[in-house]
Amino acid sequence: SGGSGGTMASESEAQRALQYEQTLMYGRYTQDLGTFAKDEAARLRLQEGDTPRPRRPSELLEYTQGRCAPCRVCALQCQRFLISKVGEDWVFLILLGLVMALVSWAMDFAIATCLQAQKWMYGGLDTNVLLQYMAWVTYPTVLITFSAGFTQILAPQAVGSGIPEMKTILRGVVLKEYLTLKTFVAKVIGLTCALGSGMPLGKEGPFVHIASMCAALLSRFLSLFGGFYENEARNIEMLAAACAVGVGCCFAAPIGGVLFSIEVTSTFFAVRNYWRGFFAATFSAFIFRVLAVWNKDEETITALFKTRFRLDFPFDLQELPAFAVIGIASGFGGALFVYLNRKIVQFMRRQKTINRFLMKKRLLFPALVTLIISTLTFPPGFGQFMAGQLTQKDTLVTLFDNQTWAKQGISDEFEYLGILEAWHHPRSNVFVTLVVFILMKFWMSALATTIPVPCGAFMPVFVIGAAFGRLVGESMAAWFPDGIHTDSNIYRIVPGGYAVVGAAALSGAVTHTVSTAVIVFELTGQISHILPVMIAVILANAVAQSLQPSLYDSIIRIKKLPYLPELGWGHHEKYNVRVEDIMVRDIRYVTLNCKYRDLQQVLHGTKMKNLPLVESAESMILLGSIERTQVGALLSSQLSPHRRLLTLRQKVLSEDGHRLSDSSIRFQISTETSSGSPARPALRKPLKPALKRVPSSPADSPPVGSADHTGIALKSLFCANAATEPTEAQGTTYHKAKRVRISIVEEMILGDKMTPAEILEWEEQQLDQLVDFSSAKIDPAPFQLVEHTSLHKTHTIFSLLGLDHAFVTSIGRLVGMVTLKELRKAIEGSLTGKGVKVRPPLASFRDSTASTTEADTTALRQLWDRHQHHHMPREAGPGGDDDDNTPK
Amino acid sequence: SGGSGGTMASESEAQRALQYEQTLMYGRYTQDLGTFAKDEAARLRLQEGDTPRPRRPSELLEYTQGRCAPCRVCALQCQRFLISKVGEDWVFLILLGLVMALVSWAMDFAIATCLQAQKWMYGGLDTNVLLQYMAWVTYPTVLITFSAGFTQILAPQAVGSGIPEMKTILRGVVLKEYLTLKTFVAKVIGLTCALGSGMPLGKEGPFVHIASMCAALLSRFLSLFGGFYENEARNIEMLAAACAVGVGCCFAAPIGGVLFSIEVTSTFFAVRNYWRGFFAATFSAFIFRVLAVWNKDEETITALFKTRFRLDFPFDLQELPAFAVIGIASGFGGALFVYLNRKIVQFMRRQKTINRFLMKKRLLFPALVTLIISTLTFPPGFGQFMAGQLTQKDTLVTLFDNQTWAKQGISDEFEYLGILEAWHHPRSNVFVTLVVFILMKFWMSALATTIPVPCGAFMPVFVIGAAFGRLVGESMAAWFPDGIHTDSNIYRIVPGGYAVVGAAALSGAVTHTVSTAVIVFELTGQISHILPVMIAVILANAVAQSLQPSLYDSIIRIKKLPYLPELGWGHHEKYNVRVEDIMVRDIRYVTLNCKYRDLQQVLHGTKMKNLPLVESAESMILLGSIERTQVGALLSSQLSPHRRLLTLRQKVLSEDGHRLSDSSIRFQISTETSSGSPARPALRKPLKPALKRVPSSPADSPPVGSADHTGIALKSLFCANAATEPTEAQGTTYHKAKRVRISIVEEMILGDKMTPAEILEWEEQQLDQLVDFSSAKIDPAPFQLVEHTSLHKTHTIFSLLGLDHAFVTSIGRLVGMVTLKELRKAIEGSLTGKGVKVRPPLASFRDSTASTTEADTTALRQLWDRHQHHHMPREAGPGGDDDDNTPK
Repeated sequence: SGGSGGTMASESEAQRALQYEQTLMYGRYTQDLGTFAKDEAARLRLQEGDTPRPRRPSELLEYTQGRCAPCRVCALQCQRFLISKVGEDWVFLILLGLVMALVSWAMDFAIATCLQAQKWMYGGLDTNVLLQYMAWVTYPTVLITFSAGFTQILAPQAVGSGIPEMKTILRGVVLKEYLTLKTFVAKVIGLTCALGSGMPLGKEGPFVHIASMCAALLSRFLSLFGGFYENEARNIEMLAAACAVGVGCCFAAPIGGVLFSIEVTSTFFAVRNYWRGFFAATFSAFIFRVLAVWNKDEETITALFKTRFRLDFPFDLQELPAFAVIGIASGFGGALFVYLNRKIVQFMRRQKTINRFLMKKRLLFPALVTLIISTLTFPPGFGQFMAGQLTQKDTLVTLFDNQTWAKQGISDEFEYLGILEAWHHPRSNVFVTLVVFILMKFWMSALATTIPVPCGAFMPVFVIGAAFGRLVGESMAAWFPDGIHTDSNIYRIVPGGYAVVGAAALSGAVTHTVSTAVIVFELTGQISHILPVMIAVILANAVAQSLQPSLYDSIIRIKKLPYLPELGWGHHEKYNVRVEDIMVRDIRYVTLNCKYRDLQQVLHGTKMKNLPLVESAESMILLGSIERTQVGALLSSQLSPHRRLLTLRQKVLSEDGHRLSDSSIRFQISTETSSGSPARPALRKPLKPALKRVPSSPADSPPVGSADHTGIALKSLFCANAATEPTEAQGTTYHKAKRVRISIVEEMILGDKMTPAEILEWEEQQLDQLVDFSSAKIDPAPFQLVEHTSLHKTHTIFSLLGLDHAFVTSIGRLVGMVTLKELRKAIEGSLTGKGVKVRPPLASFRDSTASTTEADTTALRQLWDRHQHHHMPREAGPGGDDDDNTPK
Repeated sequence: SGGSGGTMASESEAQRALQYEQTLMYGRYTQDLGTFAKDEAARLRLQEGDTPRPRRPSELLEYTQGRCAPCRVCALQCQRFLISKVGEDWVFLILLGLVMALVSWAMDFAIATCLQAQKWMYGGLDTNVLLQYMAWVTYPTVLITFSAGFTQILAPQAVGSGIPEMKTILRGVVLKEYLTLKTFVAKVIGLTCALGSGMPLGKEGPFVHIASMCAALLSRFLSLFGGFYENEARNIEMLAAACAVGVGCCFAAPIGGVLFSIEVTSTFFAVRNYWRGFFAATFSAFIFRVLAVWNKDEETITALFKTRFRLDFPFDLQELPAFAVIGIASGFGGALFVYLNRKIVQFMRRQKTINRFLMKKRLLFPALVTLIISTLTFPPGFGQFMAGQLTQKDTLVTLFDNQTWAKQGISDEFEYLGILEAWHHPRSNVFVTLVVFILMKFWMSALATTIPVPCGAFMPVFVIGAAFGRLVGESMAAWFPDGIHTDSNIYRIVPGGYAVVGAAALSGAVTHTVSTAVIVFELTGQISHILPVMIAVILANAVAQSLQPSLYDSIIRIKKLPYLPELGWGHHEKYNVRVEDIMVRDIRYVTLNCKYRDLQQVLHGTKMKNLPLVESAESMILLGSIERTQVGALLSSQLSPHRRLLTLRQKVLSEDGHRLSDSSIRFQISTETSSGSPARPALRKPLKPALKRVPSSPADSPPVGSADHTGIALKSLFCANAATEPTEAQGTTYHKAKRVRISIVEEMILGDKMTPAEILEWEEQQLDQLVDFSSAKIDPAPFQLVEHTSLHKTHTIFSLLGLDHAFVTSIGRLVGMVTLKELRKAIEGSLTGKGVKVRPPLASFRDSTASTTEADTTALRQLWDRHQHHHMPREAGPGGDDDDNTPK
């Protein structure tokens, strides 16, 4: 995983090539760069020595001595105190919460205004249905098209939910341009327009992304005041908190926000980050609600979708089967939604003709989808059968309503007041309206969330779930008009409670989370239905998880982000598969005493990003791992024109003095490397923030052993010998090579007097030299596994440490390698057969019945395998036996 | 970390030596033993070959063919299906939930009966105050004394909360006898008696322990039906779920239970275990509440301490400062509670005379404490000023009451009905009662929780917090009789809401958790006060965490359990300390070509449990790690009488045949080891469950290279050469040596004809031989760190992987070692100066102001350090430079 230099703008969301780089949890240096930069700065300061460090505050003090010194002193002390405080976690979290609450509130306000405008337009034109229709359809189409175009132009990374990407980022992968100001602006404006259009789109996912960008920008801003925000590990922790803030201030649900963000983004969660999430999310939710009070929307802080269900007898025990039915049905529904959503995306991509057409007219697809959906929801048209004029928020408010709409199956007994009227149709009853609403919204939502605008799917699914719950609730109410309970008191059934349960269950099924239960409690302000909600959510999860990946995992797979699938529910065979069954045995390696030619061959022979460095081909003792780019750099530095010219000059000057000057070069190298091996690669990498304060340092010793000087020889290496190499090699190396090639031309003209044949000869000669690893960046402790490590444990370690590869060793000797790819294959192979492919319903149940015999055969095969392999390594063993064989 | 053979019963809870063994997360074999056992079983089955495997169900079928075959077939199929299902996670979780709900309910019932009995006795004797007092005091004293004695005799491990132990166990440490049936019985009965006494004791912690024991026993029981429960990793996951069940069914709070158990027991939490906890806790809470309905206690499922606060305007924004005050005060109070609790324990231990006396009369201390506390709560006595006659449950119900007790500061306006009457004293007002209650209960709870009975501190603290909140609430209500809000509607202040906030804040402060907020919502069934509760809990946590460790961490430190302290809030210096600053450089190691004498010296020279195995002293390339016990086994096998007798016999038979027979022994060893290195050590360890099915296997090859044969030579090694060794060495090795010494005597009598001088000579000769490592269990991939790894990262990796040591390497070469001890020192050194010592209040704030200059000096020192150390290893470098120095 090379440098972060490549900034190739992504061109289309369909074929977007996601560039990523693995960041380090273990054994690599990038994490320590912040510290390194500080050390470096300290060294420079030491070098400056006698020249006094400029202390800005005191300088300022001297200038302003005349006027009101004590006041100034006080102000300066305050300033200094504040700056020292800026580094504290809680200051950052409070600022993050504050900013996000303001953003959230402002966006809510803008969205409400947009929706109001549409309603006003629609209402004002009630004399002419055609005009009304035009207004109803044009308005969202324009907004969505604008949103799509705007994000497309400014930052295509802003498209979609953002949760899949955040999940990948929190795993330690750096996605380019995902946390920049440009993306932030694109996402905020794009999302506001998209939601303002009234389409069935959500804001939860985008809010997670927005909050993360907020955190990234804020930490970059605050690092102006001090170096506290340069540590990558800390920034990852802050991002995890930001995800919680995103959900928290979207729903004013701090607890649910924290839990949801944990479930959705993490595999292993550091409990020490827990308070961060709670702190920031609570503060954010608090400010968000206070703003509503301050704006006189509310009298005091209350829940967003407050319900007023009966407290003393919220539900009867005998209603629980109905709740369980909601849960199971929601599980199937959720899986179907994920499936449908993925199929739509895949269909759009597979149809070459459609795809090519849409590529050209990039805004046509959003416009078309919006047109269809808004036409169908047109209230005087088909919309009247599906409460089309209600916004998402109004829909939820009505669905969570305390009253029972259908009494004894006849809907006309009940007075529909206010916005409730939308559900009432004179020629049909409320059941029909609800069924139509659910069916239509289901495919509309699945379709709408594929539009390339910033949008999520949580809220639409939540609404559908609420409607489904309401439908079941109303049916129950119609079936048992006086409640089920046969006691003295009549406790009627509360269909609103069913709606709450349905909302939690369906959204839980789609996202594979349990915390939607907590979110609904916080949203409605009532926890009385805790048991039905929990039961339904767990059942929905059980069903959905056995059928489909979660919506976010599905998107991760579609976008081909680097991920590690979860281990399924209780698959025992996981414990029986071992590393030796899945590892790659035939790996290329670099030996300590190899020649440059060997490096060249290794580079051509493999695509691995990290090459193992072993002591010798005989002993195979693993010493460390070296990055592919480093190997390339070693090669190019050996074949650099500069070195060639140096040799040439030396030859010309004196054949005898050759030995002397060569050793002086060697000396130069070794003094440089003795200042710490991470120093050199760090300087070579484009790490702007870390190196901002040491601008003069790299200029001291430019030429020797550096990768920045490559000649035609390298060109030949890259282009002639292996035409495929440049595409295989990482973008950075390629870029560097290109850039360098141009800058080298002048040097060639100036000093190069060797013929191409001579150069080739010289290079052949150079390639036969032994490799000098002293200037290479070697990871001295790459992660090692043992052959017997189980797949389950390997998965745990990979996800715990965010690894992308590990070497398999046996008593120091390298025997194989496992990468994310092998692991993924092993897991998916046993999980679903063919990756994303849908499993037949209830496959998990069938699997488990067959598991006993299967496990037996696996065990047998393994035993056989192990017996076979165990003879092999012992033959090349480290000689422990041989030593003792000499008799005393 | 040696074998688990030592079962020395713990004698006193004061000086109890906790024996523990590190289990593996990484690179060791124990985890794979389940699988190994299966493989072994498969191998045995293969060996049996032609003899048909007995299939019990079909055999049964044949016997009963005559009677009603189809019915039997059906039953058998059902049975087979059920057995196959037993391995599923959800079956286990449902069973666990069911069992725990039943246990919880039965215990609640027993406790309620006990309390009822006391009340009845006290009520019945109201004619005579002295008799009444006797009854009031004797009853709890007897119960507590019985509880203390019972647990002491049956299982001293059952004493106390159990959460600290569970935290340690979940970190991967095996605590002996902590999850056995005996401990389960002791804990259940002891806890029932202790809580039935009416002392201020809690049941949350013990319930976590009980649930974990339930899970352990259940998995042992279910493993009778199949091998699914032999995997240690899975059992740990199930234990984590069990902790959630414990809290969940204690309070009927599934969500809060899961979160609380995560916060309290985990450092890194696997999100894939999340659903397990939710599933089991929900089921358990459901059954627990259903039992209450079934018992006609309740009409339907509701919250345990249901509140009926006003929903439409739960609190005013301007009341928030009062809630914040509750939070901050609770933070200080919580820290004080932890401090007080620890000081009492330390005082009891330090006072030698008291201690010796109490050791003798072990039941005196519990009786004395109970006597004091029950005397003070005697209702006609001092108890009348502190609502002494109320049980914990009644106290909570009254504190969460919806009414305002004090109106305009005059308490007589309000009619105290029912149990509320206890708070009303004719000659004092409710404020005095509350203050007295809080003060008295505070020290009583801190004292009572040190009694050696199974008990927790959560509930007492929760009650005190509720009383404190109520006090603030009543004061606010007296201060603003018509509410703060100056609008048309008068919204009076709800003191019950304050009580809820106070309860959550104080219990959160003591346990350092945020999830108490969720627990109160679930307990009260109302979420309307979410923001005040969250704010107070977070503030309380902030204050308490900066002052004191959590109650559980405090107990962990007192009990000296193997733990890793948490990194504090935003201590930036953590990022600047590196492994090279804290690692031990001077470590003993074993080389591949060393002699047995070297092993002896290494064993004498170090106390490390794991010794690094390097290639040679020159190269220092780390090949693996070898356990101390393994080294001891190698030595004793080399010096074993059996080997000596063999040599003797060979000498006697023929001097020429010597070479032949020695090589035949060698052959025997190598065939054995070629069947997989984990095989041998696994057989040697006392792993009963894993090896139950392979009883005949270890008997095949008893003598060669085994550790079970030790002679007087070994005795001299252990006793003469180093008198301190036996105490230093692990209990297991010592035990083994003792046991073996006795069994060896007969062998000596039978065949040993060498004089002691000859033996000594022979042994000296043996010690000069090269070590044969082929029979030793070597961890082929011990965990490695780099010198530059930051303390923060090291901490993360240690707690992620549950390590207790890691080697520090530099390009394959061993340069140092970090153990839990160094890490702990480094963290505590920077956190608190001297471990448990209390930091001055607000130390964190002072720290941060000084951090900038401190960081600078640290950076400088580090730079210097790094420069120094980098020359050192390069001199002994792996020859990369040297090779290239030869000019072409």
